[in-house]
Amino acid sequence: MHFFFSILDCNKKKMNHEVDDLPSGPLDIYRKKASFNWKDMLCFIEGEEIHAFKQHVFKTLENDPLFSRQPGEDVPMEKMRELTFLRVKQLFCYDFMPKEEIMANPLKTLFFTDCLGMYDWAMANKFFLSTGMFGATVANSGSMRHSKYVESINDMTMFGCFALTELSHGSNTRAMRTTATYEPSTQEFVINSPDFEAAKFWVGNLGKTATHAVVFAQLCTHDNVCHGLHSFVVPVRDPKTLLALPGVLVGDMGKKLGLNGLDNGFALFHNVRIPRENLLNKTGDVTPDGCYVTPFKDPNKRFGMSLGALSGGRVSITRIALVNLKLALTVAIRFSATRKQFGPKDTEEIPVLEYQLQQWRLIPYLAAAYALEHFSKSLFINFVEFQIGQIMKDNSDRQAELGREIHALGCSSKPLGHGYMAMNRLGDLRNENDPNCTYEGDNNVLLQQTSNYLLSWLHANYTDGVRIESPLHTVDFLGNFHKIMESRFTATTMDECMDSAVPVAAYKWLVCFLLEKSQKRLEQQRSTGKDEFEARNNSQVYYCRSLAMAYIEYNCLQRFHDLTNDRGTPAGLRPVLSKLCTLYGLWSLSSHIAILYQGNFMSGEKPVDLVQKTILMLCSQLKDDAVALVDVLAPPDFILNSPIGNANGQLYKNLWSTVMQTSQVLERPSWWKEFCSDKPIVGSLHAKL
Amino acid sequence: MHFFFSILDCNKKKMNHEVDDLPSGPLDIYRKKASFNWKDMLCFIEGEEIHAFKQHVFKTLENDPLFSRQPGEDVPMEKMRELTFLRVKQLFCYDFMPKEEIMANPLKTLFFTDCLGMYDWAMANKFFLSTGMFGATVANSGSMRHSKYVESINDMTMFGCFALTELSHGSNTRAMRTTATYEPSTQEFVINSPDFEAAKFWVGNLGKTATHAVVFAQLCTHDNVCHGLHSFVVPVRDPKTLLALPGVLVGDMGKKLGLNGLDNGFALFHNVRIPRENLLNKTGDVTPDGCYVTPFKDPNKRFGMSLGALSGGRVSITRIALVNLKLALTVAIRFSATRKQFGPKDTEEIPVLEYQLQQWRLIPYLAAAYALEHFSKSLFINFVEFQIGQIMKDNSDRQAELGREIHALGCSSKPLGHGYMAMNRLGDLRNENDPNCTYEGDNNVLLQQTSNYLLSWLHANYTDGVRIESPLHTVDFLGNFHKIMESRFTATTMDECMDSAVPVAAYKWLVCFLLEKSQKRLEQQRSTGKDEFEARNNSQVYYCRSLAMAYIEYNCLQRFHDLTNDRGTPAGLRPVLSKLCTLYGLWSLSSHIAILYQGNFMSGEKPVDLVQKTILMLCSQLKDDAVALVDVLAPPDFILNSPIGNANGQLYKNLWSTVMQTSQVLERPSWWKEFCSDKPIVGSLHAKL
Repeated sequence: MHFFFSILDCNKKKMNHEVDDLPSGPLDIYRKKASFNWKDMLCFIEGEEIHAFKQHVFKTLENDPLFSRQPGEDVPMEKMRELTFLRVKQLFCYDFMPKEEIMANPLKTLFFTDCLGMYDWAMANKFFLSTGMFGATVANSGSMRHSKYVESINDMTMFGCFALTELSHGSNTRAMRTTATYEPSTQEFVINSPDFEAAKFWVGNLGKTATHAVVFAQLCTHDNVCHGLHSFVVPVRDPKTLLALPGVLVGDMGKKLGLNGLDNGFALFHNVRIPRENLLNKTGDVTPDGCYVTPFKDPNKRFGMSLGALSGGRVSITRIALVNLKLALTVAIRFSATRKQFGPKDTEEIPVLEYQLQQWRLIPYLAAAYALEHFSKSLFINFVEFQIGQIMKDNSDRQAELGREIHALGCSSKPLGHGYMAMNRLGDLRNENDPNCTYEGDNNVLLQQTSNYLLSWLHANYTDGVRIESPLHTVDFLGNFHKIMESRFTATTMDECMDSAVPVAAYKWLVCFLLEKSQKRLEQQRSTGKDEFEARNNSQVYYCRSLAMAYIEYNCLQRFHDLTNDRGTPAGLRPVLSKLCTLYGLWSLSSHIAILYQGNFMSGEKPVDLVQKTILMLCSQLKDDAVALVDVLAPPDFILNSPIGNANGQLYKNLWSTVMQTSQVLERPSWWKEFCSDKPIVGSLHAKL
Repeated sequence: MHFFFSILDCNKKKMNHEVDDLPSGPLDIYRKKASFNWKDMLCFIEGEEIHAFKQHVFKTLENDPLFSRQPGEDVPMEKMRELTFLRVKQLFCYDFMPKEEIMANPLKTLFFTDCLGMYDWAMANKFFLSTGMFGATVANSGSMRHSKYVESINDMTMFGCFALTELSHGSNTRAMRTTATYEPSTQEFVINSPDFEAAKFWVGNLGKTATHAVVFAQLCTHDNVCHGLHSFVVPVRDPKTLLALPGVLVGDMGKKLGLNGLDNGFALFHNVRIPRENLLNKTGDVTPDGCYVTPFKDPNKRFGMSLGALSGGRVSITRIALVNLKLALTVAIRFSATRKQFGPKDTEEIPVLEYQLQQWRLIPYLAAAYALEHFSKSLFINFVEFQIGQIMKDNSDRQAELGREIHALGCSSKPLGHGYMAMNRLGDLRNENDPNCTYEGDNNVLLQQTSNYLLSWLHANYTDGVRIESPLHTVDFLGNFHKIMESRFTATTMDECMDSAVPVAAYKWLVCFLLEKSQKRLEQQRSTGKDEFEARNNSQVYYCRSLAMAYIEYNCLQRFHDLTNDRGTPAGLRPVLSKLCTLYGLWSLSSHIAILYQGNFMSGEKPVDLVQKTILMLCSQLKDDAVALVDVLAPPDFILNSPIGNANGQLYKNLWSTVMQTSQVLERPSWWKEFCSDKPIVGSLHAKL
């Protein structure tokens, strides 16, 4: 863990001289009112090295004409896919993250992904699906015999994809129906799709460009025994021509809601033969004569291992949603600070950011972005630590426990991503953020994993008296269950409420209360004779689902609370960070207030009034910091690509000139004669009913 | 009002023989389990005549090749605008709603709009913006001298648009900066945009096709007196060539989030001269020698009248959001009834609609759709009644009161539109529903109008002892304010909670409580020396805004409650309608539970448990009715245009065949050589930091 701390430590260096000033303009009014130095904040949350790296990536893209674009341009889908592919190819030439760098500084990969995603998630996904999702799965699930694939992916002689989902199966991975049957006579696996409902579907990169796929299929030996889901490297297109290989029906799914630069596709396999060695054999192998061998005795454990590639994905998706939130906030807050409408007198108008209602709609999301920034970064570090343990073959109990705890955090952190509002590029962002809610597990399905983890702690503590203490300490407080359950909301003044310890304490109570409530609900369902499947299903809404959400919100808040109180946090930034932390805590808590009353943690008219007034007070105190706070999160204008969100704040000038730059903006339509000469005869086609 | 009731009465006729059966398939399982006859329900909510009319419109479009399309096709923007224009032209030829029909049966226009919108809102809007928004404004705000415009719009020799919003002004209509200065020497108005920030912006139809615009501008007489905002007919393009007229800089705003078949545009006027007669002179006129004359003494009242064209819009937008909800529900519920995933044993999977969590995510929206169906229809009837009064020049107090009450209902009913979830066509629906939240007033701004209306009642009652009784009786219950404030939640069993009278009573309390709270908040703000502008602004969040939402939800619920208890409602449909009504009521109420506890209407652990359990129970009871309930709301498959939502329920077959029908689905990309020959040299562009 040592080198991670050194990364975080280097954040504390001053680097004001390294950061370019932002262009002057109408936003200056708010920038001058900020209570903190935005460059100090940038230095604190990114550090000098990372900031320089990000600027290098951003500027490189901006200086390369291949990456130029126009906000709102109408690019046909085929062209969008070609452009995205060409840009991905260029990324190989730039080689921003050579392998040595990744090993030396894993946190840098996180920021590299941020950079590419801020430019375009379709491009970022296309790149990482081949190099990461395909490349890393082959590296982690295969063995030495597969290293040639990893090399070919890294120099782009191959292009990869990850083919798990089928047309009729997504979340229920065990039920995949593609088969891989071993034939000892030829030492080959025969990959087959029983029918079109078992076609691999939704696979990124498979539509137009993948030459190879990691295909998940039921491994059958010739004695007709099925050994469950395993992964195989299957060639799908000839790398010399991009034409489909014999037996593979592969194609493009067509237009999607968003991310149209990425070619999602499908594949049906008609008895496609691949060599025995193409089985990724970490969790199980087949001998040349057809015997199945595995280091895992428990098939469930083996299955879990083979899906390990997905855990890292969930941690990343939390980050993707956060990056989208940062972009959306940049646009929304800069717009709100420059868009004026109405005012105390008819003649003078005020920026809409001055309205309490607008503050309340935006600033809590800004607080959430800062809370999530710290949370997703620290969760990523936890995850890297776990991965190193895996690579080092750490078989300790702690390593196993750490895996479970990260799984519980990862499953619920993904649904933590926040929604947002409509404005320039915001529509695209929303469409492009949407898949984050579904891929790698529907959020509601994932939340069950988290509540199961918490319930198992309670169970172990009740029945076996196990002491509650986890590697990341996210559940340790449950050891004080009874004491916490007796606690109450005691703040009586706004001053007291301004301390983030207030929402932290409320969340501890909330998690305990919902844990007990969920446990009771499950028992009650079982006692009425329901089987475990039904008992669990009927305990999600209002119980286990709420529990998992409360747990992850608590964790995110607790980590932010610890950061704001850390002696390493610069004194000049602590006041604004504390306000953001309390606002995030109280605002998140406010969706659970009914439960706080129900469980008598709150009572009477006062507490909810106090929480609401404190939220409004914090919004109002933070509104003058809002522009500076997004300056810290914002990428350069070229990357942001939203005229109303430009750093110069020249809202109308930017918008007007962008409209004027659009092609054919002032021309009459090509089909003008349809209006001018060929006139309709009203009712000429009218038919009586 | 008589003829409206006769429309509603004719609904009660049996018409089973008129309705086509739906195609058989996997959905039959649920259809057979339904507790009611879906054709009876269709008959009840639409009636025979309307149903036949809708089917006529739907089939006409389906049979005309000009209206054919492919789900998910990638149509370039220019082509989409051309197609939309050609379809609009064809609508003139079909003349589905001749003028006599509109007068004889105004409700039919509502369903006609539904039909066009279910096909494509861009087309519907393009059509109604010219014929309705331009045509009706000219007819209502002008006089006899403008009838030539109305005729030309109706035979499409002109094409119109409605130009109010400017680049830097939307909600604050008074602040528009375009001027219309009268010159007695030539008897002309000179229309001028002082700068680009005053360009008319976002105007539908203005981008490519409008020949004439209703332009709102500050009317100035030659003595330099400004008489406020008035509307003028301004020619913008030559109808013979579609080229811009001298002095008009007019163009297309380019690609939008959705509705790209509609050409939104902008216009800058450089001293464009129009005849004096082009002023729409209902609220004010200028004599040939330049004297301003008006029948209104109060400029505020005149201003209100000139914006009257917008009120009808808001009532329509509520309906648009509902139509989108119906389409989304059709897709989501049919999908959920046929998509299977997991199950009690590993081998047998169950439809996702069987999961409590999925029921809870979808079925309350289904209940809301039924509640809103009745509400939007009855509100439309109220509005037509009001319009007739206006045309008849009804100067009674009741007519004025009716106007205020409808304004209060309309402003808050627009924000009542519900959000939804992601699936086939659902993304487009969401993008296309988005403008409903912003145009004709930001929802949060509109909600203030409603709370102002309610506060004024309270004030009149307190200070002048005025009896609370309104034309539509939506506020009459406030007369029992004190008694209602003393009421409490008394239900103790699920059985009691199943009666929609329970949420109705809770809402009455909620509105009273929030009204008093808002009133106190305002007073407290004023007492600290804040001016009225600031006092109002600081009383929206948690107070006036919540009040307006509670009021409109209460109204929607109350009307649905009355319908389910009406003796005219068929006995066979009453049980399912009652369940929908209670579910809508309790589910809407559950977002206010914290307030119910805060105000002591609820206390202890029981009430919220009871509400939650009843919601889950109702969801579970309604899941077998869900498919039949959407069959009632669904348009034919051709109109729905979503393979996973087809009436035959062949989810995977439909999806697979749609993908296979896509052009170039199996072809390699046109740019395949970019992958195959021109390989990147990894790191060739690598630059050190």
